Amino acid sequence: MQKGTNLYDEIIELASRKSIFYPSNEIYNAPAGFWSFGPLGESIRRRVIEFWRKEFVQKNEMFEIDGCQTMPDDVFKASGHLTSLVDPETVCKKCKGRFRVDKLLEEKLNKNIPESLSLSEFNALVKKNNIKCPSCKGDLGDVEKSSLMVETKLRGNNKFYLRPEACQSIFLDFLRMSKTMRLTLPKGIAQVGKAFRNEISPRQSILRAVEFSQMEAEVFFNPDKINDVEDFKSVENYKLRILKLDSKNVEDVSCKDAVQKKIVSGKLPCYYLAKAQQFFEKLGIPRDKMRYRELSKDDRAFYSKETFDFEVLTSVGWLELSANNYRQDYDLKSHSEGSKQDLSFSEDGKKFIPHIFEISIGVDRTLYAVLELSFLKEKERNVLKLNPRLSPYDVGIFPLVNRDGMDTKAKEIVKLLRDNLYDVFYDDSGSVGRRYRRMDECGVKFCVTVDGESLKKNDVTVRDRDSMKQVRVKISDLPRILNEIIVFNKDIKEFGKVI
Amino acid sequence: MQKGTNLYDEIIELASRKSIFYPSNEIYNAPAGFWSFGPLGESIRRRVIEFWRKEFVQKNEMFEIDGCQTMPDDVFKASGHLTSLVDPETVCKKCKGRFRVDKLLEEKLNKNIPESLSLSEFNALVKKNNIKCPSCKGDLGDVEKSSLMVETKLRGNNKFYLRPEACQSIFLDFLRMSKTMRLTLPKGIAQVGKAFRNEISPRQSILRAVEFSQMEAEVFFNPDKINDVEDFKSVENYKLRILKLDSKNVEDVSCKDAVQKKIVSGKLPCYYLAKAQQFFEKLGIPRDKMRYRELSKDDRAFYSKETFDFEVLTSVGWLELSANNYRQDYDLKSHSEGSKQDLSFSEDGKKFIPHIFEISIGVDRTLYAVLELSFLKEKERNVLKLNPRLSPYDVGIFPLVNRDGMDTKAKEIVKLLRDNLYDVFYDDSGSVGRRYRRMDECGVKFCVTVDGESLKKNDVTVRDRDSMKQVRVKISDLPRILNEIIVFNKDIKEFGKVI
Repeated sequence: MQKGTNLYDEIIELASRKSIFYPSNEIYNAPAGFWSFGPLGESIRRRVIEFWRKEFVQKNEMFEIDGCQTMPDDVFKASGHLTSLVDPETVCKKCKGRFRVDKLLEEKLNKNIPESLSLSEFNALVKKNNIKCPSCKGDLGDVEKSSLMVETKLRGNNKFYLRPEACQSIFLDFLRMSKTMRLTLPKGIAQVGKAFRNEISPRQSILRAVEFSQMEAEVFFNPDKINDVEDFKSVENYKLRILKLDSKNVEDVSCKDAVQKKIVSGKLPCYYLAKAQQFFEKLGIPRDKMRYRELSKDDRAFYSKETFDFEVLTSVGWLELSANNYRQDYDLKSHSEGSKQDLSFSEDGKKFIPHIFEISIGVDRTLYAVLELSFLKEKERNVLKLNPRLSPYDVGIFPLVNRDGMDTKAKEIVKLLRDNLYDVFYDDSGSVGRRYRRMDECGVKFCVTVDGESLKKNDVTVRDRDSMKQVRVKISDLPRILNEIIVFNKDIKEFGKVI
Repeated sequence: MQKGTNLYDEIIELASRKSIFYPSNEIYNAPAGFWSFGPLGESIRRRVIEFWRKEFVQKNEMFEIDGCQTMPDDVFKASGHLTSLVDPETVCKKCKGRFRVDKLLEEKLNKNIPESLSLSEFNALVKKNNIKCPSCKGDLGDVEKSSLMVETKLRGNNKFYLRPEACQSIFLDFLRMSKTMRLTLPKGIAQVGKAFRNEISPRQSILRAVEFSQMEAEVFFNPDKINDVEDFKSVENYKLRILKLDSKNVEDVSCKDAVQKKIVSGKLPCYYLAKAQQFFEKLGIPRDKMRYRELSKDDRAFYSKETFDFEVLTSVGWLELSANNYRQDYDLKSHSEGSKQDLSFSEDGKKFIPHIFEISIGVDRTLYAVLELSFLKEKERNVLKLNPRLSPYDVGIFPLVNRDGMDTKAKEIVKLLRDNLYDVFYDDSGSVGRRYRRMDECGVKFCVTVDGESLKKNDVTVRDRDSMKQVRVKISDLPRILNEIIVFNKDIKEFGKVI
């Protein structure tokens, strides 16, 4: 990732001005790495999660669970996090600033530095390249492994940590799911929620925060049946955007080819890579700005047999939104040993430890990518061309003027639509043009305006954010029409003459 | 609260058997006080939150924000939590067990003991009533104040804590909201999320956990205008269920009377008490099982001028679901002093510190109350008569038998409904009767069955959980009909002849 460019700065400016996101504890001397979401940001972010839930979790028949964020140390001893979740850190001898050595090296050398290097390898690189403190140019101390785990002080004998990723409870609860939920393999189990990492230098706003959110799905399967995917036919001609390890160019590879040419290790991982890419496409990420980057053995986690990072091209470079790891039997085996419980599964009279393919998506980074890729500066306005299912409000509702009964009528429409579970924003301040601009800038796709005619004819104008065109429709038809245009992406011109 | 009775035990049994909720980290030696939600519980719980968001937050034009769970100690110094959020604790001299002294006294004396007593008062009561260790009958040590705050170890100079309630970021962000969101008073700002308390003895499953969730709303208003509530007329004849401090009986008191007779301190608090009670009624809590219990000065928080706990009668006694506090200017004043920022607001050319009325609802307790009050044992089945908007799935979809194209047709319906954003559960295993029973027990209100006729006529049966009656409807009408019966609570018989 490179330093922020102008577009990044514009998004941060917009986010701050509209309170989409902003530093937590701002009125105090706010420590870096913590971000809050205001009314607009909270809504868009929640809708990103709901989109994932509907399009990825539910359509793929996954279970969704919700476990605790604080977990005892036994869990992270077994998972390996207590020893492995470390970053190489150096402290400046002069100013005492703390820095991630791999990032300092990457900035200086402009190439990828694997986190997995040994301390002596890091020290040698620092010396060889004459790396100094980026703040004060002082000499840097010896590189040390610094844990990213956040300990919490709870009562009793157990040590507790805040989870560094959302997924661990999925592994712990697999046994219970298999006993109580009539579970058959393959089966995805998903979880969304907060995770916490003690970052050495949190930076780039919500792109690397201490407290952040993940949407994770873990697909459990029988490794002997990695190529038994009932529904594979539905994706076999769908093209993945793949950047192979040995390549400099992203290729469009059909799922069929990806499996046949062993670019992906089997139909099951390939199927979920396709489903995840389709999710991102539907969310509004353009195909030419997305890629699955294959990771080398040095770059991927030690338990992963195969990793593809899903990356999106933004103004800060290729931004990783999702890690996709073939975790093999690592998790169930480790927790089986740690808990002394048998976590194996029986199928066709055979007992085995299920393998896991993981699709782990960063919520906040996805939100950022969606914002940046939707943002347009046009001659007369700023506009966020969000997928209407991600708009912070389903619709804005305005009386043309705030009198003559137009306000009362507009408030009746607010009630009608809220009773139909729409999220609406009522605004009667300033000219209608200004109100449209305000909605454009925060991504609301549709505005309904009540004018003098509305009182006589019980109809209103519906204005589309992107085309800025309007149609006139009956008030009583609004709930149905909004559903058609939001959920099925229909054009407003299907519902009336464009005016 | 008394010990669990049979109904409580039945809910726990159901919750465990169906993985609605269960102890977190179960496969390890799971420490008490942490609970996870399986697929059914996660869904019902999420829908409780969404119901609150739609019916309480959005219909009352509140903002919803999402702040961080980890916050620096300055915040909790100013809020008073570091000194005030303490429970009186005693350690058994013999078995070293830790206990909350107020709870031990309450169990022995069968009356309410204010948490606010001094240590010497607690010690005197323990001695006078000869309270012994409930585990081993040993002598108890001196009573000490034990903090419920959970500290976390983060980098840097700041000490951090996990928030003990969801609301603090609302107070911190008020200044930003007032500057960026065109905020006018009165205005509610809401937040839902996790909170953490280092409970001395977590107990009764999700009713008192260390990690729990809250839905909180803080209404900011001008204290000079406590009686200027535009919409008060809409609730003036609505009857609150109030248990006054000096009374033994719950009374139905109209909002108008509650204000006139000074039972509630003004129209604004009264209006939100009404809105909150209406929310709980709509959620499915019967009026005769709810009350607002007025708290005495000793029982309420020191900053609260007036507190009504919203309680629901369950098998464990009157269970507090929500605390409603008139917090006055305490929060903005404290954080103004703590942060050295001016948090006042200007209106009509006058500067003042807004007052706050708080409606703080426990998510997990609300979930429990809804489950218990919906649970019925009938002759041939167990049934959870949940509000259909809280059902874990909108609808169950079954092929009558798993062949002859019925399964294919049923899967087409699954796709149709998922494309319309319904959450559906497909089940083709066992007799249809058994499948109905399974859905009944987890609260799914509607089941759609595809039979032989369906293939010819493109219609299906829709069966209602509560009446167990069925109607036959066109497949293409299903999305619209489901919306009418789920959102508008219409009876299925409006859509066809009951069969």
